[in-house]
Amino acid sequence: MLSVVILGTGNLAKHLFDAFSTKKNVQIIQVFGRNSNVLTYFESKVSVTKSLDELLEADVYLMAVTDDAISNLSKQIKPKKGILAHTSGTVSLDAILNTNRGVFYPLQTFTKDKSVDFKSIPICLEANNTKNLEILGQLAASLSNAVYEITSQNRKKLHLAAVFVNNFSNHMYQIGSDICAENELSFDLLKPLIVETAEKIRFLGPKSAQTGPAVRNDIKTMQRHLDELKDPIHKKIYQLMSESIKQNHEKEL
Amino acid sequence: MLSVVILGTGNLAKHLFDAFSTKKNVQIIQVFGRNSNVLTYFESKVSVTKSLDELLEADVYLMAVTDDAISNLSKQIKPKKGILAHTSGTVSLDAILNTNRGVFYPLQTFTKDKSVDFKSIPICLEANNTKNLEILGQLAASLSNAVYEITSQNRKKLHLAAVFVNNFSNHMYQIGSDICAENELSFDLLKPLIVETAEKIRFLGPKSAQTGPAVRNDIKTMQRHLDELKDPIHKKIYQLMSESIKQNHEKEL
Repeated sequence: MLSVVILGTGNLAKHLFDAFSTKKNVQIIQVFGRNSNVLTYFESKVSVTKSLDELLEADVYLMAVTDDAISNLSKQIKPKKGILAHTSGTVSLDAILNTNRGVFYPLQTFTKDKSVDFKSIPICLEANNTKNLEILGQLAASLSNAVYEITSQNRKKLHLAAVFVNNFSNHMYQIGSDICAENELSFDLLKPLIVETAEKIRFLGPKSAQTGPAVRNDIKTMQRHLDELKDPIHKKIYQLMSESIKQNHEKEL
Repeated sequence: MLSVVILGTGNLAKHLFDAFSTKKNVQIIQVFGRNSNVLTYFESKVSVTKSLDELLEADVYLMAVTDDAISNLSKQIKPKKGILAHTSGTVSLDAILNTNRGVFYPLQTFTKDKSVDFKSIPICLEANNTKNLEILGQLAASLSNAVYEITSQNRKKLHLAAVFVNNFSNHMYQIGSDICAENELSFDLLKPLIVETAEKIRFLGPKSAQTGPAVRNDIKTMQRHLDELKDPIHKKIYQLMSESIKQNHEKEL
């Protein structure tokens, strides 16, 4: 049985709490948070505290806080025998001061009130020694079938890739939504296409899946699309993405 | 009972054939195609022909061919009593010469050997008169719960929006995959994130769903990401997308 203290009360903290709560080999023994309002979510279910001096002894302390807060929070926590781990894609292992330290980074986007299936979520681990890595490995395996050891350097690359596939794809949805709104069309019309486009990559690589005017160098259609776009930045995005798709597929020839 | 002839033997033709085959109020009576090899998929199940002179009488003729082929194919088909309809997002209704003409555009990406659930796929209809629109409506309703009447003009806008949410999002997956490959990381690590990012828009608008360094104007992280990117066009895309996300969210303030 691994005992765990969660530090933080945001989306990720809640999702981790809910997911661990159903596991027999993990016990969340405490949640730390500074904000009384959000602590209420936890206090009927587990011991909560607003003071870092009251942290209980645990095998693992999971800091589910924003990237910027990690280093400061770590400094304020008195040395612990357990592993102090953060959950960030970008912060290096050494931002944590504790002797036993690690990273427990679930590579997923977490939304308020939307449950996720942790079984398929990649959890990227790092620790300052093999023993700590093993303990974090047990903890991660209780949630997920996709546990990876990833260095700080590679974790940063993954996070960068995540900006493209998550933030930038989502902005493409935004532009699609804008074009619908301009023409009084429901964004619902695009939702099945958005989901299927993503589902496709489970079994078809993005290069093989690529379709549209840019990949077949259909200059007439691209010019017509550019003429139809009203927002100058949408035009720029259309041009640059089309150019990049073309370059990417020319490499193949 | 509506009788239907399908013209074309590609992905969409197969998906439509398979979907209609399970419906009681629709009968596919013939498939036309020029290529013997691909016609074999259909010939054990339905009458097939390679000659436009042998087309049977039907209520609806669905042209599931490439955009460029529609106009020519339409010219080669002798006048029909039934409705001659194309399935394209970009070609106007008037590219079809037949007296009774229409558009039957399923707004989805179709992949070889991957079944799709037509029930949720928006089908965009257009016809030259109310009676023909009604017949196409019956045909569409047999497959989908999301049937819309959309003008040629608006259909083109939808298709343009589809380029952003489908082609361009898919290219973001490609860049994510490239970054993984450069660092010997498995692209599998990003797949759950890609699918969840898309699933999210079912209940959260893309503006509310947006996260990442650009939306919070985290200049330090964005600069580090730019330094980490190797491919010059990836850098340009990162900059332009970040700028567009920033602009989009500043509008709100």
